[in-house]
Amino acid sequence: MKILVVGGTGTLGSAIVQELSQRHEVIIAAHRSGSIHVDITSEDSIAAMYRKLGQVDAVVAATGQVHFGPLIAMRSSEYQKGLRSKLMGQVNLVLLGLEHLSDRGSFTLTSGILSHDPCLHGSSASMVNGALESFTLAAATEMPRGIRINTVSPTVLTESMPLYQEYFRGYAHVPAAKAASAYSKSVEGVQTGQIYRIWS
Amino acid sequence: MKILVVGGTGTLGSAIVQELSQRHEVIIAAHRSGSIHVDITSEDSIAAMYRKLGQVDAVVAATGQVHFGPLIAMRSSEYQKGLRSKLMGQVNLVLLGLEHLSDRGSFTLTSGILSHDPCLHGSSASMVNGALESFTLAAATEMPRGIRINTVSPTVLTESMPLYQEYFRGYAHVPAAKAASAYSKSVEGVQTGQIYRIWS
Repeated sequence: MKILVVGGTGTLGSAIVQELSQRHEVIIAAHRSGSIHVDITSEDSIAAMYRKLGQVDAVVAATGQVHFGPLIAMRSSEYQKGLRSKLMGQVNLVLLGLEHLSDRGSFTLTSGILSHDPCLHGSSASMVNGALESFTLAAATEMPRGIRINTVSPTVLTESMPLYQEYFRGYAHVPAAKAASAYSKSVEGVQTGQIYRIWS
Repeated sequence: MKILVVGGTGTLGSAIVQELSQRHEVIIAAHRSGSIHVDITSEDSIAAMYRKLGQVDAVVAATGQVHFGPLIAMRSSEYQKGLRSKLMGQVNLVLLGLEHLSDRGSFTLTSGILSHDPCLHGSSASMVNGALESFTLAAATEMPRGIRINTVSPTVLTESMPLYQEYFRGYAHVPAAKAASAYSKSVEGVQTGQIYRIWS
């Protein structure tokens, strides 16, 4: 398969690339690195990326930012960051990617444990992750040409704990390589409309 | 209690008002009717409403629009409608309302069954409902002064079936008065961070 991994240079993305590149042609897209540059907050940038790539068999999104901060100090503008980037960035990869995806191809998006298990100052992350998961359930019912869509919800990554441990005390963490196996299941498997929860 | 019901003139909102006004002072806000006019897509309009009202003991939101349409024909702009209105409209009622809410007051928002049980052409509604529910879980952990927040997720209302039945074949429907009881539980009860699913 020819697989596009958007965010393929991050901690999670690198592990996904390592897993999938053993068996497939993987193209890495990222904001400032990778073999294709893309700004997922720009529909034009996403459309340009797909035009360059031509047809692909799978699109994996392991990308997107959200604002972390105390809810009582947050306004709509801080929530917009996550809605524009992690939510609509990934959703636009689906909407604009559909015509470039092979029959029976797949989209795999990334949410995260905070949709169900909130942490300190994570209300925007919770919002965005919940939105991605419910979107996935609905989108799976409308995918044309046998195209599938799933979302992976990882807990905090072991590799990220040094940076984020104060937000995730007591949470089980998993190595990025373990989370990556869920992307393999989504891309190389047969299921659709699934949320793969890699929470321990 | 002095209770603000935003969207209190709609099918659901009217039933909530009928339930709560038996025991409380209820103020109805709506876009073009009610005793206070508010455009929930405008932070300025929400802030002006709260300034007029002064302090309240509970805020109920039964309001917000989303675009229904085939996913393959939808672009970011159609999803923005739901993100601006039903999602951030309700979230902004929380963010901007916090300072006007009494100690141990409550917010009660409205999502809907489509977060978990998608229907035809409802991918935006699913997205928004999932976002509201996960936001609620997180926001409840950060509410100051004993303030509570819950979300009610109704299935399709019996009163709305004539209009929406083609989207909801086979779904259980509930009378608005039954859904309204969940708002009573949220406002007059003690729980927080709950999603009250009124699905049958």
